[in-house]
Amino acid sequence: MWEEQLKIIIDRIKNGELSQDAALKSIKNALSGHLGFAEIDLARAVRTGFPEVVFCLNKTDEEVLKITEMLYKHNKHVLLTRVRESAAKLLKKSFPDLVYHEKSRAVTIGEPDAETGLVSVVTAGTSDIPIGEEAAVTARMMGARIRTYWDIGIAGIHRLFSKIEPLKESHVIVAVAGMDGALPGVIAGLVECPVIAVPTSIGYGTGAGGYAALMTMLNSCAPGVSVVNIDNGFGAGYTAALINKRGSAH
Amino acid sequence: MWEEQLKIIIDRIKNGELSQDAALKSIKNALSGHLGFAEIDLARAVRTGFPEVVFCLNKTDEEVLKITEMLYKHNKHVLLTRVRESAAKLLKKSFPDLVYHEKSRAVTIGEPDAETGLVSVVTAGTSDIPIGEEAAVTARMMGARIRTYWDIGIAGIHRLFSKIEPLKESHVIVAVAGMDGALPGVIAGLVECPVIAVPTSIGYGTGAGGYAALMTMLNSCAPGVSVVNIDNGFGAGYTAALINKRGSAH
Amino acid sequence: MWEEQLKIIIDRIKNGELSQDAALKSIKNALSGHLGFAEIDLARAVRTGFPEVVFCLNKTDEEVLKITEMLYKHNKHVLLTRVRESAAKLLKKSFPDLVYHEKSRAVTIGEPDAETGLVSVVTAGTSDIPIGEEAAVTARMMGARIRTYWDIGIAGIHRLFSKIEPLKESHVIVAVAGMDGALPGVIAGLVECPVIAVPTSIGYGTGAGGYAALMTMLNSCAPGVSVVNIDNGFGAGYTAALINKRGSAH
Amino acid sequence: MWEEQLKIIIDRIKNGELSQDAALKSIKNALSGHLGFAEIDLARAVRTGFPEVVFCLNKTDEEVLKITEMLYKHNKHVLLTRVRESAAKLLKKSFPDLVYHEKSRAVTIGEPDAETGLVSVVTAGTSDIPIGEEAAVTARMMGARIRTYWDIGIAGIHRLFSKIEPLKESHVIVAVAGMDGALPGVIAGLVECPVIAVPTSIGYGTGAGGYAALMTMLNSCAPGVSVVNIDNGFGAGYTAALINKRGSAH
Amino acid sequence: MWEEQLKIIIDRIKNGELSQDAALKSIKNALSGHLGFAEIDLARAVRTGFPEVVFCLNKTDEEVLKITEMLYKHNKHVLLTRVRESAAKLLKKSFPDLVYHEKSRAVTIGEPDAETGLVSVVTAGTSDIPIGEEAAVTARMMGARIRTYWDIGIAGIHRLFSKIEPLKESHVIVAVAGMDGALPGVIAGLVECPVIAVPTSIGYGTGAGGYAALMTMLNSCAPGVSVVNIDNGFGAGYTAALINKRGSAH
Amino acid sequence: MWEEQLKIIIDRIKNGELSQDAALKSIKNALSGHLGFAEIDLARAVRTGFPEVVFCLNKTDEEVLKITEMLYKHNKHVLLTRVRESAAKLLKKSFPDLVYHEKSRAVTIGEPDAETGLVSVVTAGTSDIPIGEEAAVTARMMGARIRTYWDIGIAGIHRLFSKIEPLKESHVIVAVAGMDGALPGVIAGLVECPVIAVPTSIGYGTGAGGYAALMTMLNSCAPGVSVVNIDNGFGAGYTAALINKRGSAH
Amino acid sequence: MWEEQLKIIIDRIKNGELSQDAALKSIKNALSGHLGFAEIDLARAVRTGFPEVVFCLNKTDEEVLKITEMLYKHNKHVLLTRVRESAAKLLKKSFPDLVYHEKSRAVTIGEPDAETGLVSVVTAGTSDIPIGEEAAVTARMMGARIRTYWDIGIAGIHRLFSKIEPLKESHVIVAVAGMDGALPGVIAGLVECPVIAVPTSIGYGTGAGGYAALMTMLNSCAPGVSVVNIDNGFGAGYTAALINKRGSAH
Amino acid sequence: MWEEQLKIIIDRIKNGELSQDAALKSIKNALSGHLGFAEIDLARAVRTGFPEVVFCLNKTDEEVLKITEMLYKHNKHVLLTRVRESAAKLLKKSFPDLVYHEKSRAVTIGEPDAETGLVSVVTAGTSDIPIGEEAAVTARMMGARIRTYWDIGIAGIHRLFSKIEPLKESHVIVAVAGMDGALPGVIAGLVECPVIAVPTSIGYGTGAGGYAALMTMLNSCAPGVSVVNIDNGFGAGYTAALINKRGSAH
Repeated sequence: MWEEQLKIIIDRIKNGELSQDAALKSIKNALSGHLGFAEIDLARAVRTGFPEVVFCLNKTDEEVLKITEMLYKHNKHVLLTRVRESAAKLLKKSFPDLVYHEKSRAVTIGEPDAETGLVSVVTAGTSDIPIGEEAAVTARMMGARIRTYWDIGIAGIHRLFSKIEPLKESHVIVAVAGMDGALPGVIAGLVECPVIAVPTSIGYGTGAGGYAALMTMLNSCAPGVSVVNIDNGFGAGYTAALINKRGSAH
Repeated sequence: MWEEQLKIIIDRIKNGELSQDAALKSIKNALSGHLGFAEIDLARAVRTGFPEVVFCLNKTDEEVLKITEMLYKHNKHVLLTRVRESAAKLLKKSFPDLVYHEKSRAVTIGEPDAETGLVSVVTAGTSDIPIGEEAAVTARMMGARIRTYWDIGIAGIHRLFSKIEPLKESHVIVAVAGMDGALPGVIAGLVECPVIAVPTSIGYGTGAGGYAALMTMLNSCAPGVSVVNIDNGFGAGYTAALINKRGSAH
Repeated sequence: MWEEQLKIIIDRIKNGELSQDAALKSIKNALSGHLGFAEIDLARAVRTGFPEVVFCLNKTDEEVLKITEMLYKHNKHVLLTRVRESAAKLLKKSFPDLVYHEKSRAVTIGEPDAETGLVSVVTAGTSDIPIGEEAAVTARMMGARIRTYWDIGIAGIHRLFSKIEPLKESHVIVAVAGMDGALPGVIAGLVECPVIAVPTSIGYGTGAGGYAALMTMLNSCAPGVSVVNIDNGFGAGYTAALINKRGSAH
Repeated sequence: MWEEQLKIIIDRIKNGELSQDAALKSIKNALSGHLGFAEIDLARAVRTGFPEVVFCLNKTDEEVLKITEMLYKHNKHVLLTRVRESAAKLLKKSFPDLVYHEKSRAVTIGEPDAETGLVSVVTAGTSDIPIGEEAAVTARMMGARIRTYWDIGIAGIHRLFSKIEPLKESHVIVAVAGMDGALPGVIAGLVECPVIAVPTSIGYGTGAGGYAALMTMLNSCAPGVSVVNIDNGFGAGYTAALINKRGSAH
Repeated sequence: MWEEQLKIIIDRIKNGELSQDAALKSIKNALSGHLGFAEIDLARAVRTGFPEVVFCLNKTDEEVLKITEMLYKHNKHVLLTRVRESAAKLLKKSFPDLVYHEKSRAVTIGEPDAETGLVSVVTAGTSDIPIGEEAAVTARMMGARIRTYWDIGIAGIHRLFSKIEPLKESHVIVAVAGMDGALPGVIAGLVECPVIAVPTSIGYGTGAGGYAALMTMLNSCAPGVSVVNIDNGFGAGYTAALINKRGSAH
Repeated sequence: MWEEQLKIIIDRIKNGELSQDAALKSIKNALSGHLGFAEIDLARAVRTGFPEVVFCLNKTDEEVLKITEMLYKHNKHVLLTRVRESAAKLLKKSFPDLVYHEKSRAVTIGEPDAETGLVSVVTAGTSDIPIGEEAAVTARMMGARIRTYWDIGIAGIHRLFSKIEPLKESHVIVAVAGMDGALPGVIAGLVECPVIAVPTSIGYGTGAGGYAALMTMLNSCAPGVSVVNIDNGFGAGYTAALINKRGSAH
Repeated sequence: MWEEQLKIIIDRIKNGELSQDAALKSIKNALSGHLGFAEIDLARAVRTGFPEVVFCLNKTDEEVLKITEMLYKHNKHVLLTRVRESAAKLLKKSFPDLVYHEKSRAVTIGEPDAETGLVSVVTAGTSDIPIGEEAAVTARMMGARIRTYWDIGIAGIHRLFSKIEPLKESHVIVAVAGMDGALPGVIAGLVECPVIAVPTSIGYGTGAGGYAALMTMLNSCAPGVSVVNIDNGFGAGYTAALINKRGSAH
Repeated sequence: MWEEQLKIIIDRIKNGELSQDAALKSIKNALSGHLGFAEIDLARAVRTGFPEVVFCLNKTDEEVLKITEMLYKHNKHVLLTRVRESAAKLLKKSFPDLVYHEKSRAVTIGEPDAETGLVSVVTAGTSDIPIGEEAAVTARMMGARIRTYWDIGIAGIHRLFSKIEPLKESHVIVAVAGMDGALPGVIAGLVECPVIAVPTSIGYGTGAGGYAALMTMLNSCAPGVSVVNIDNGFGAGYTAALINKRGSAH
């Protein structure tokens, strides 16, 4: 849109409708008004098939509804994260086809255009599943084919080993773990694709809050691991989908 | 090599040379001896074009030399990081063609087979260049085409904006920053590829050690950012190369 | 009042009513009694037009009421921060004209004498608005003209850019942000007035509590940024009003 | 310069020298090339009388010299902070009139155009003087009239009280303190202008690194205090000069 | 089981039922399938007399029930930790003989085969008893003879001294303490067996969360102390039982 | 009692009732039994006039009652801290004369034998009063004469100055402060007696939990300040009473 | 001196030499000039027998000499802490009778007037002796009788127990400890006088810097412990001398 | 020795040589003099075969020599840790048979009486070997049979797997790791004996100092892991030897 605005201004300059000063001001306004940037943003969503995403943690049910309605006009599908059950119920009235992903409290409206590549999402324990599910739902809505492996942490390392072969087929792996956070590093030592590590706040004592897991992941001996914020399943799924898209686009 | 060992065992079983017990023990030994696993590792290096990498920080010059000699037998090219100047000089005698990358103190022997895709490495300041160079050298040795943009931090945000168009062509961006660490998040809000953020220990006061930059990066408002350890240029370059390979392999 | 006390003592010395010892003791008492300082304080409030401010977080509704009644006798307007809804209702009975600012839970009684200069208050996200509103209400009650810009964080950096021109007219800018806290630094790189940065406790994982945002702000690459405590909208508004007053007084 | 570039483009459009496409590209280039932004920056320095500033901590003596030579072409005066003695000596050959401020290791070339308003810089102890001097030199080079008060911390609170009256004349006060960091808060309770607090890394035990002082300052009971990074005398002086300018410009 | 699988494969090779390629794949599958490892785990539980343990903190009552039912099929006794009262009541219906240990909220089903050796569990205060009880219940279910000494912290050091002689008979001591966490170090200076130290989150101010106690224990001047996570009574009891078993097995 | 036990053993040796071995064992038992130490403790309480103190935070109402009943048999007065209202009501039935100190939630039974010396307890703000009251009640029950000064923090430093003269009469001062925690240091610079500093968890942002105040106090520029745990009014009052006793006993 | 100034002013008022206005100004000046306060400080030193103390860590040898010369004019004895050997040698030329305390690097000039009361200084290990000596030298110069007990930490708790009886005679005990920092708490449980705890930065791993010891001391289960900054032997000795003076003055 | 002292006292009582009072005092002295306790300590060393150990980090070469000479009189073998090379050379003159363990800088004099049981010491990387060697030397001097496995961290997890079978024969395993610290947890999931985890300060960025490794180990998902201080190879070896002794004594 911004280009369109500039083209109009150029035409008006050509037509002598704008003095040098007025033209200067118009071009500046096109930059300042910045509707152009916003439209580019909307265009990007349509073009890439990535949904707009709403982080609902600090929003009222009504605010969530309004934003969703606005987004739905411009997007074929919408992703909402951290949705309270009451908000999900309110949305349900306007969007009867929405899916409420109970563990992660994510809401999806519409389906992704395609599911390509392969993003595997693994969790170390059952308590990490909500974050894992958030990553999986996010990546899928952004067009990734998804496989999930819950509860394959290193306390019973054989659980992991039995999954290594299928894991090796992934374009990218999201590995979610709390407590000692050792799972992503062990996986990265066994596969050849990038691993996105997600520390979770599961745990108690020194493990509470997820800092122990975060530290472990940042210090992974095996290269190929990069890390997102504690409990940030959305961010991991988003990055994984970007990587997956690269590997799948050709 | 491990497969070869197994094939020989299988043949010997077929030929009746091994009793059930002896066969069981031989297979176990093939696993336990673990020369097999090591060879698989070597095979992987040859197959993927990824060099073996030596982290030299806590090794004597002589240890560095010995490991390099061993690796060079099995690999066409070798990457060494955090190499003291004295070690580089010692290596130079045995490997006259090595390149010593002065800022990052990385040493490379041999050239990558190909340079495909595009990994862009940017730094916020001039002090971040050693880490940026480590990332660039690593990713290049792993087969990535590299572009570097030094000193384009947000204090003079126009420096960044003039590079946005070429940055958008990247398969993945490595963004290196100390102090406020805001650069990767700003970039991620402007491009569509994954951004690997590397905090650096540059800074003073609360910025010393790189924790402030790390925290900023983990909390990036813009999605698509994942983070590696402070000053871990190697890890960022390695992960970037993995992602780049995905996007370039087809 | 302290001066008055001293004048009376001086007269009594002159009149021979006080021996050297008694005079010495009287002067010391005038210092110790320190009613003088308190009166100066009250005088200052009247003179500067700054309201007395009550921080209500740990006070009972009754205590809030009593303090407000006492202050209202000496001041034309009163500002109360962090007021529970129940306290606001209790106050309403005695001060029917009070305004309860719902997001920030601030209460104002009376209007500022004038609105001069320009303090702009911006927030990165919608969750930062309560703190932003506290800053805006505080600065306005202290005589500043106010403009507010909510939700213009750097994740969608165009939202900020469209506001840069009006922001440049400010005498001082209060920039409120949680999570990566990058907004104040980006703004400071684009304007010429001082920026007061307020980290907010919005966020999760490593962003919880606002420390990540605080660290980012203290390490801002762009000069001109100074920082107040996490969630301290009042302090930011107060400092902004002091700066604004300097720039507007002539 | 950017405006000049745009004006030329506009004229060329008017003259029919540029097609719509070519015009679009030219305007984009003017933005992308970003010489425009840089020139605006230079223009700002000339217009505001603020020198360009070089932070020399991680730069070689030669790099410092080159940057200084470049800056000196466009600016009447230059400020360099954290300059090693060897670098200062090297600079001295090219800039015989430079002043080396020994405690703060700042270098100034040229004099400010004017000294207006009043920025007072105080330190709690003698160990805080290097940071205080950096703030004072910075603010002066940016056009502020300066008064300094060293070693007036609260351990001997009478030292402070004897300076309160002259301090009250300040447009803004920079208060530098290590250890308990209580000085800025005590001052803010006694004056009516904004106080910029600078924690210093002076101290030992829990005071080492300056975090204790930082925490104290962020939690100051007296409003009107804002804080910069530990040991950031430059940042405090810069912000103080911005505030001072506001109050002095009319 | 894994050995059994390998034996069958060997027989089939011998019998000519598997070609070299097929044999190679079968052996690999036996490794990848990893049912073998899982079965070994179950076997180990039966053989060692160690119960399978369920950490119930983040599981629903129904999940706890299902897991317990599954485990009970393969084990003579089951240990569950951090069991909500509601879950304990639900379990009671299916396992009427279970014991609910009220302070620690542990549930035990069945009795240990034997009680050998001696594990002494001591707590510094009464508030530490829940964690102490968890350690004691765990170690007993794993076959250890148990003695417990509650509330013998060093504030009244005579309470400890009167217990030193019986404590000296222990194979291993679990010492549980919050606040200053000094008890394990004092004990280790007086006995000759290993001491497992458990910090508890009891305390307030700097003692809240148990970090002060953890730090004290890790820095114990007396050797022979090793430490587990804050509040990890289960881990301490488990390790103590392993040590006790070593000393009692002969 | 322990001496009595030893005397009996000595007599029995003298009387030939104990062989060398039996005597050796008896003496050892006297040490191990350690009832002696406990009785000394009780004796000390009676002798010094210090009450036994019960910290009730983690005890049930019934436990509090039982302990109180036991202590009351051996002591003329009892102090209980952090008593829930329900526990206070339960105690009231058995001890109708008890006093429930509402702000600090302390309970006292009986009166101190004497009130000597002078312990002054000051708080910076009104929110610090519960901790201040706990200190005051504790010190008074241990025989100290008490003066309290609430809400004289340094934000309005004149409030403090008007109290300096009476404060100077103290044997020891307990200074309670949250947020910036600067009050004890300012007082210590003005008086000649020891100051016990108590940080409180009052505050928000970086001040939450009381760590900022603790750091300030530990780094006090003025000597004569020692510090107790955050919110530990009891500990401060106890130490103050010990110091006061020293100064008052002659 | 301040009183003298005031007396002169009073006389001049009496004599009619000063108008009301002039008198007011003169009294204010007497306060502002603050030579008065400084002199009071000097008077206090003479009266209390407390030496002026110079903290030399960040001062040049010449600065140390100048300050010492100035102080020596007004004081019978001087205490300097953290004195480099070179500074001690320089001082030796002007003050041939000074004593250089080698372990603590304290310098004393002159002897205390008297040694009364009893301050015992104990250290847990030999590495803590420098801090212990600093405390002992400080308290002695302030008039305390001193006993020292080095290396009686709890790892060999019998070393402590053999010293308990003489320790009980102390008016106050300074207990210095690094690593687990448990010594002060154990002592406080055995004596009836106040204990000043000094954490030391001795230690490694989690003990490095002294934070573990600090935490232990702040959380001491035994009441009667108050704490000073890590390595602050001077502060502990100073506070101990204040307490000792109280108990010895009568 | 203490028993001997007591026996003599008993005999003297029997012989009427000691009055009740004198006897009481003598017994007390035997306790207070505490030569008794020290002798018991020496006796324990002889009896258990555990050498006295000297931690030399903060001791001069001469102090190390004197202590060693004293210990050598009472012990057949001596262990010294963290010995500077200069101290080792000095010792060599008096103890020509000593062994200087170069990596760990430990010194041993004499040989253990026996080597029983099995303590395995493993390190994740080559940089961890100094700490591993310290553990191995310590445990061996205390009578343990030792096996060491250097550089078998999880980055190349096959290196570990090839050692699992021999590791399973251990009575206890000491697992030393820096960076992500994941090795001990992985091992504990595969063996049945206790694992003592030692974090090392190897690493950079967030891994510097060893806190990341410590956190990982404390939060190990696999039970059976207990932890010692960062870099505390001695403590781990000591605890391992205590455990090993239990399992080997019968």
